[in-house]
Amino acid sequence: MSIIVLGTTALDTVKTPAGKRKEMLGGSAVHFSMGASFFTQVNLVAIVGRDFPKKHIEFLTKKGINLTSLIIEHGKTFRWEGEYRGDLNAALTLSTELGVLSAFRPKVAEHQRHIENIFLANVDPDIQRHLLSMMHKPRLVGLDSMNYWIDHKRRSLMRLMKHVHIFVANDAEARSLTGQTNLIKCAKALRKIGAPIVVIKKGEHGVLVYCDDFIFCLPAYPVEKIVDPTGAGDTFAGGFMGYLTRAKKVNAGSLKKAISYGTIMASFNVEGFGLERTCGITKKEVENRLGQFKKITTF
Amino acid sequence: MSIIVLGTTALDTVKTPAGKRKEMLGGSAVHFSMGASFFTQVNLVAIVGRDFPKKHIEFLTKKGINLTSLIIEHGKTFRWEGEYRGDLNAALTLSTELGVLSAFRPKVAEHQRHIENIFLANVDPDIQRHLLSMMHKPRLVGLDSMNYWIDHKRRSLMRLMKHVHIFVANDAEARSLTGQTNLIKCAKALRKIGAPIVVIKKGEHGVLVYCDDFIFCLPAYPVEKIVDPTGAGDTFAGGFMGYLTRAKKVNAGSLKKAISYGTIMASFNVEGFGLERTCGITKKEVENRLGQFKKITTF
Repeated sequence: MSIIVLGTTALDTVKTPAGKRKEMLGGSAVHFSMGASFFTQVNLVAIVGRDFPKKHIEFLTKKGINLTSLIIEHGKTFRWEGEYRGDLNAALTLSTELGVLSAFRPKVAEHQRHIENIFLANVDPDIQRHLLSMMHKPRLVGLDSMNYWIDHKRRSLMRLMKHVHIFVANDAEARSLTGQTNLIKCAKALRKIGAPIVVIKKGEHGVLVYCDDFIFCLPAYPVEKIVDPTGAGDTFAGGFMGYLTRAKKVNAGSLKKAISYGTIMASFNVEGFGLERTCGITKKEVENRLGQFKKITTF
Repeated sequence: MSIIVLGTTALDTVKTPAGKRKEMLGGSAVHFSMGASFFTQVNLVAIVGRDFPKKHIEFLTKKGINLTSLIIEHGKTFRWEGEYRGDLNAALTLSTELGVLSAFRPKVAEHQRHIENIFLANVDPDIQRHLLSMMHKPRLVGLDSMNYWIDHKRRSLMRLMKHVHIFVANDAEARSLTGQTNLIKCAKALRKIGAPIVVIKKGEHGVLVYCDDFIFCLPAYPVEKIVDPTGAGDTFAGGFMGYLTRAKKVNAGSLKKAISYGTIMASFNVEGFGLERTCGITKKEVENRLGQFKKITTF
């Protein structure tokens, strides 16, 4: 089993209380890939410019990410610059340069269209929809978005939500989409819009999973030294979807496991800038932390 | 085994999106008693005015709360009026009438001074200190406070923290006392000030327990219809300390259980105004919800 992810591949410049890094490899599809590739083979659908450093291509290839459908286009790679202050829960966007992303029309190699597990990471919902329409037999489709699209393409997003199995949102997005404040009410409202499984990410406060048959909640793994939260949500989604892809069955048991693995992958992500920490983690580190997590959350 | 709690007994007027109630029985010691009396015999140390309704005395007595050390003084009972908006996470205080509380000097009947389990619920830290000095053999002392005392009597509070076993704070208080934003760092800093066990309450996001040997975290029990959060933290502390009093031993196992019971008691508290919901809960309801909670947090 493998998974295909559509999203951004970016060069991120990030400032946090821990320091600053310029033009690191980032983007929703890349962070997702770091979380998911731990569990399954990942196929990346994205676009970069000719200025995209070759070392990043080599790095992703070495990590086993299939780049067949990564478009390399004349122009500049999407760049994001942001800063985190105080409790590091919210990013302040300093600048966004879309570059080649502004004309992104995803292409998917024919043999990849048979992949059954799909994640539509944060990009324009019309592009997400287009990717989904190219896939031959979606078995498990996850969808993420962001406030910008909720504000500017709400209708497209809500239409797309009817065609996915899992909708992933952070708490602010869930509230903004539904007009509810209580997160259980948010989850119920999101479920009514479409996706049978709703995952609400609460950053340092953990995650809530809602579906018709059950709810499930976990705190975040407690991390003392948060270096850079960029991509934590995508890494979480990667671990979550990656595990579900490997598990094959989607039920209460596998969802719980998937959420816990997503939580652990995200906890590594925030411990370093960009991919510094997630690029090198071992199976043993992940399993150890999962064991620790179980211990500190089981009563 | 029994427990003695010092705190406020109040008449609360509360407005929330669910409605408004006038002059309900409330206060930190009363909400604590509701959580703790489920597990152990509770002795209340507080002050009320002559205007304090007789029905409240009868109610507390009927609940098995020992009122020997409840002072009934000439003057008005402490009154608090507050409002909750939006996500109900923070109260907006509309008015505070101290009344007899302004000259509160706790008295404890001699036979009650031998009680080994003590909770110093939110009042002036000098009054908390005075109560503690009267007790003959403290075995387990818990301490709560609030931002007002952190701002106005920080030194008294910090001195007192060295003489208690458990310090309970909400996230805002923990940040304000330590100057840290990351809650693990807050917990470590609080532990350094004094109490060997630090409990940080995060409202709808659950709770974090920190001590030298281990940390433990739990999400809140997911409640869809939050009617009135007033006293949730005190009810949590009551369930937590009440369980520890009954358990006798304080170790990782009993602390985890205590936290989960505190969480469940608090979840009932928010489902009704004042004591509406906690006054009538049965052992079966508590155990059922605890079982449900275990199910939705175990992976």
